[in-house]
Amino acid sequence: MASELDLKQFIRNIPDFPKPGIMFRDITPLLASAAAFGESVRRMAEHYRAAEPTAILAAEARGFIFAAPLALELGASFVPIRKPGKLPFDTRAFHYELEYGSDSLELHTDSVQKGDRVLLVDDLLATGGTMHACTALTEECGAEIAGLAFLIELDFLGGREKLGDYEVLSLIHYGSES
Amino acid sequence: MASELDLKQFIRNIPDFPKPGIMFRDITPLLASAAAFGESVRRMAEHYRAAEPTAILAAEARGFIFAAPLALELGASFVPIRKPGKLPFDTRAFHYELEYGSDSLELHTDSVQKGDRVLLVDDLLATGGTMHACTALTEECGAEIAGLAFLIELDFLGGREKLGDYEVLSLIHYGSES
Repeated sequence: MASELDLKQFIRNIPDFPKPGIMFRDITPLLASAAAFGESVRRMAEHYRAAEPTAILAAEARGFIFAAPLALELGASFVPIRKPGKLPFDTRAFHYELEYGSDSLELHTDSVQKGDRVLLVDDLLATGGTMHACTALTEECGAEIAGLAFLIELDFLGGREKLGDYEVLSLIHYGSES
Repeated sequence: MASELDLKQFIRNIPDFPKPGIMFRDITPLLASAAAFGESVRRMAEHYRAAEPTAILAAEARGFIFAAPLALELGASFVPIRKPGKLPFDTRAFHYELEYGSDSLELHTDSVQKGDRVLLVDDLLATGGTMHACTALTEECGAEIAGLAFLIELDFLGGREKLGDYEVLSLIHYGSES
């Protein structure tokens, strides 16, 4: 097997974005490398191939970047989870609280159902709020969750614990903010 | 060669969305079919492979769904164009007018440059406003535009004429609103 790329080398650290004290992990250099981006998708696919997921779900917008090629690689449905008012058919909504205010995500009611095995994907696991909304929407549809896949996990924020007992794969880990 | 799927069969028509009189072309059934979604990406790749694009650019959010797997298929960079405040590094912005109000899109200044051959991708060509912003940002960076690819083109809105002399590929056409 070919040696693995060090994917963390393709992440750019931007201090104080979007606000002071936050170190933003910029994935655009990774996306600009077909080798690194391709390897990221392949590693997610290899980890979950045996689970035979029938649908790959992701919240807009960055989640789409990984979920779309992953769906094609695994021969599964790609299902978008979107901000309110974007999906035109019957939707199910999940409302959740943020540090300031609240937010909602929507899923088409016909997109997943009982019998589906769902893989949920995002670029980043921070506090887990967005992914918790996605798992709740999926469970409400009666589908089984095969696992969660992230490019990056910020271990020090404890998002993994918040998400419960799901299988979680993260390709890049940060143990502290700096 | 295997016969081609009729991709239009995978588009769901939703009357009066997002407002009365508009027939919304819902792509989620196509995305839910790995066969139809995969064939869409392959047809775009085959059309532009000989042009050897170095970067695939798309505006959030639905454009990402086609551009990401296309970048991997063609071995090119994936470069996101985003709403203001989303990209963390130095950006170039393009402001444009909408029917009511205005909007902006941003591109990282280091993402494409002179010598790049860019393929711009979106799910839908309507009046061409969003894609015009994308071509303008690309030209301002000094990169060459190899062409534009859309899943759907609404021929009756004349967006293609607005975009000028670029090579345009659209996989599905609608000749009228109904």
